[in-house]
Amino acid sequence: MLVSKLYAPTLREVPAEAEIPSHKLMLRAGYMRKSATGMYSYLPLAQRVLQKIETIIREELNAIDSQEILMPIVQPAEIWQQSGRWDVYGAEMWRLKDRHGHDYCLGPTHEEMITTLAHMDVNSYRQLPLSLYQIQDKFRDERRPRFGLMRSREFIMKDAYTFDKDEEGLNKSYQDMYDAYSKIFTRCGLTFRPVEADSGAIGGSGSHEFMVLADSGEAEISYCTQCDYAADTEKAELNLIEASAEEVLPKEKVVTPDCKTIADVCAYLKSPVEKSVKAVAYQSEKGLILCFVRGDHEVNDIKVINTCGVNQLEMAPAELLEAAGTTGGYMGPCGIDPEKAIVVCDQSVMKMHNFCCGANEEGYHFINVNPGRDFTPTFVADIRLMQEGDPCPRCGGKIAKARGIEVGQVFKLFTKYSEKLNATYLDENGKANPMFMGCYGIGVGRTMAAAVEQNNDKDGIIWPVEIAPYHVIVVPINIKDEAVKEKAFAVYAELKKAGIEVILDDRDERPGVKFKDADLIGYPVRVVLGKKTLDNGQIEVKARKTGSIRMLPADDFVDGIRAILEELKKS
Amino acid sequence: MLVSKLYAPTLREVPAEAEIPSHKLMLRAGYMRKSATGMYSYLPLAQRVLQKIETIIREELNAIDSQEILMPIVQPAEIWQQSGRWDVYGAEMWRLKDRHGHDYCLGPTHEEMITTLAHMDVNSYRQLPLSLYQIQDKFRDERRPRFGLMRSREFIMKDAYTFDKDEEGLNKSYQDMYDAYSKIFTRCGLTFRPVEADSGAIGGSGSHEFMVLADSGEAEISYCTQCDYAADTEKAELNLIEASAEEVLPKEKVVTPDCKTIADVCAYLKSPVEKSVKAVAYQSEKGLILCFVRGDHEVNDIKVINTCGVNQLEMAPAELLEAAGTTGGYMGPCGIDPEKAIVVCDQSVMKMHNFCCGANEEGYHFINVNPGRDFTPTFVADIRLMQEGDPCPRCGGKIAKARGIEVGQVFKLFTKYSEKLNATYLDENGKANPMFMGCYGIGVGRTMAAAVEQNNDKDGIIWPVEIAPYHVIVVPINIKDEAVKEKAFAVYAELKKAGIEVILDDRDERPGVKFKDADLIGYPVRVVLGKKTLDNGQIEVKARKTGSIRMLPADDFVDGIRAILEELKKS
Repeated sequence: MLVSKLYAPTLREVPAEAEIPSHKLMLRAGYMRKSATGMYSYLPLAQRVLQKIETIIREELNAIDSQEILMPIVQPAEIWQQSGRWDVYGAEMWRLKDRHGHDYCLGPTHEEMITTLAHMDVNSYRQLPLSLYQIQDKFRDERRPRFGLMRSREFIMKDAYTFDKDEEGLNKSYQDMYDAYSKIFTRCGLTFRPVEADSGAIGGSGSHEFMVLADSGEAEISYCTQCDYAADTEKAELNLIEASAEEVLPKEKVVTPDCKTIADVCAYLKSPVEKSVKAVAYQSEKGLILCFVRGDHEVNDIKVINTCGVNQLEMAPAELLEAAGTTGGYMGPCGIDPEKAIVVCDQSVMKMHNFCCGANEEGYHFINVNPGRDFTPTFVADIRLMQEGDPCPRCGGKIAKARGIEVGQVFKLFTKYSEKLNATYLDENGKANPMFMGCYGIGVGRTMAAAVEQNNDKDGIIWPVEIAPYHVIVVPINIKDEAVKEKAFAVYAELKKAGIEVILDDRDERPGVKFKDADLIGYPVRVVLGKKTLDNGQIEVKARKTGSIRMLPADDFVDGIRAILEELKKS
Repeated sequence: MLVSKLYAPTLREVPAEAEIPSHKLMLRAGYMRKSATGMYSYLPLAQRVLQKIETIIREELNAIDSQEILMPIVQPAEIWQQSGRWDVYGAEMWRLKDRHGHDYCLGPTHEEMITTLAHMDVNSYRQLPLSLYQIQDKFRDERRPRFGLMRSREFIMKDAYTFDKDEEGLNKSYQDMYDAYSKIFTRCGLTFRPVEADSGAIGGSGSHEFMVLADSGEAEISYCTQCDYAADTEKAELNLIEASAEEVLPKEKVVTPDCKTIADVCAYLKSPVEKSVKAVAYQSEKGLILCFVRGDHEVNDIKVINTCGVNQLEMAPAELLEAAGTTGGYMGPCGIDPEKAIVVCDQSVMKMHNFCCGANEEGYHFINVNPGRDFTPTFVADIRLMQEGDPCPRCGGKIAKARGIEVGQVFKLFTKYSEKLNATYLDENGKANPMFMGCYGIGVGRTMAAAVEQNNDKDGIIWPVEIAPYHVIVVPINIKDEAVKEKAFAVYAELKKAGIEVILDDRDERPGVKFKDADLIGYPVRVVLGKKTLDNGQIEVKARKTGSIRMLPADDFVDGIRAILEELKKS
């Protein structure tokens, strides 16, 4: 490809709505254009990246005997009514009618469709296991589309579905897919972590999210620095830590003037923060909820919601606290009337001894408080956020944190859809059983955007070699110099012949302009041909990622460039 | 791939609605399943065929410097309102609203979208010419979806668009695309003809349809047996043929009892049919229209509609004929009151001498009628259908007919959309000009179906090698015979290693069942391994298309099979 022909219109000014690097850079460098809110056209460079990701996906899924199909985008309402999701999905589902007034939707996902297919054609245990996938556009009418391809309304997704005879089969299919996903994201040149998306603490998990690590990630991940444990921080479950024995002291009320925060209190009392308990007060449809965690811990709203069986939490107003006989800044679990407030204590609080906490009275705290003796909560549960330095619930190692972008998810559906949509098979004894299903998604456009989030600098994108639109750009310093031009085309032709994906900047532009564009677009390797270096029989080869420059002989460079590309893949 | 794993569920009974071979066979052989009226899921075999067609399309379009992009399916109403097509498109366009009530459609085509893209980013003559394409689902809510993939509501289309500075550039882009299309359909192994889709007689045409020849084709094609002229019969224009001179004889009224058809009259009068003129009478919103063509010609309704400037034609009732002073079976152009009927004569009638025609009176005809002297029509025009044996309007050669399936179309748009959507570029002098556009479509699913229409027999599909889901099926007669089984897997492995796409029927089924399935699915080459032939050191290789069987050495067959595949490609 010649740059003069490449359709990659660059932008000088990026729309203000583009907030994150991938969105800004892909607009600026001419990878995509917005056609409507949350909808994008992919221009040639993006299309090449997408196709490379798709090829990697296809190869790895075909390798585990998953077979590619293609299901319609427009789906009849009936199958969604049968699964019970037609009414549940809400405004996020694009709905439409055909000319006869029949209801349809634009597939936000394809569980109903694939289960209907299996219902039609899979009848016998001999046809199982079965693994099918497609790469197809999906549609979700997001309330707030943003971040470019991260949260768009029309997006490319690879979705796969497995059908098995029983849970054992499902577990194997799930593991195969999990392994394939790991290979896929590795081959895309991405740094990622599969994280447990639910009930991770115990060991077995029904779902994993594949997270590409990047500072701009929407999700916070807690991962173990010693084992492969990783979880969405909001969902990470903590193990109960056995406390050491300690002599129980008598509870005392102490004056703590102007100590409104736990830090103030601990400083004033000269007590370590690990010996304190702090409170967060919520208003809910079940009334006031007082949550207590250790002074250096944070409350996890979602766990509180699940523990108390409520739908929503808001910060409790002062009046509500007064009515329950307490006050902001001095809340504590002792003496709260269970009729007036739900008291929820984190499990770790129940193992503490002789801690300090609010006395439910302006200016006073208790010290030497002990659970059981001094208070009995309504609920004891794991209600705190996992934090840096916490012990890994799997191996006890140290937890670290990172931000991540979800690019894939694997999920055990068990018989949820097969029962509702009547997808049964006859077993060896002629008995009908529902199939055990799994579903597995990869956001293809999102993977491309995540790669940019993880790999960029102030000058532009730094593509992993594996999914770069072209591997090498050849830049002649001055295209008007006939000798330079001729050599540039020769180098271009030789690289092409060697199977390296190469683009030649044949434009009559200043070198600075060409270098800027090359950096912005993010080709992994740049080859520069100038009169001087050519006179010395050399060409300059620069790796975009490391910035390292190497001079190669102008008549023997293919292997050298190939070696640089291989090094970049490993770096 | 192993047949035991392949997801290709066959059907014993094909739904009654499947009328044509491709629809029936692709359902029966497990290539596709219907999910709603006019909407299909493509199963693994079909997906492989589709991807092969897509690969051929990509290679040929990339070769002419067309660049692949991907535009959204959901398109905002605004751009369609700007082009004026939002209201024109009617019920065929799927419309929908988002959660904010904004109007969108599912793209039936992408002229508006691509022109908007060009408007945003193409500003200078230096960016032209530009050629972009995508392979994307299209949506048309057909009134009567039928014939499977031939007329469906959601379908895969390759659409390309070119942008040029001027008409000369457009002509070149058009020709490049025309040539690429010819290569694409040739590489798909199809017998096809590009036909002129409008005003073909003169020479230059603004549109060609690429027709795959098949008896079940919806369109009738007239093509020259000597030059490359071909046109949709309904649109084929006829040249005026100069008549030879002939002495004009006096008109006579003759009795022709019970001669209601032109054949009766000519037989009764012992006059050649080429010396007769017959009539067709229509009722229109402008009243009665009497059309006259030579006795052996047929009237083309569409040409009559265009000539008379009416919207619709129906057969005229007897009363209307009576009111105009004529009667069925005896209509003629002489003496018709122009106030009571529009008289339209085919151009060739005006060059005839001394012909016979109805006398507008039950039981009588005129002979020796001569145009001008005996009657003056309201309109003289080309109003007849081209027919077998007609002279080619291009070279005078003989016209033959065939039926065809439209699989592609190339179309010069000129500045129709660029003017409406303001897609202008600045020329060398800094002056803004609208871009000259072309648009080019290929129905990808339709091409697959057309291939089946052109290549099938009573046993099933006969895929052209180039787009077959697999090239070779290996069938061990008895998989329970360990030696046969082992050899079958070895043959399978060796073919695979040689880069031949091969599938192994490893099922424990009777040979008859396996052969039937292989024929139905349509693999080009079948390799059969039986105990007896293996004992003789041979394997049996059968070409699906020709039925010819060749025995190859069981230890040296790869080149032989490759040769058979090459022969099949050429056949």
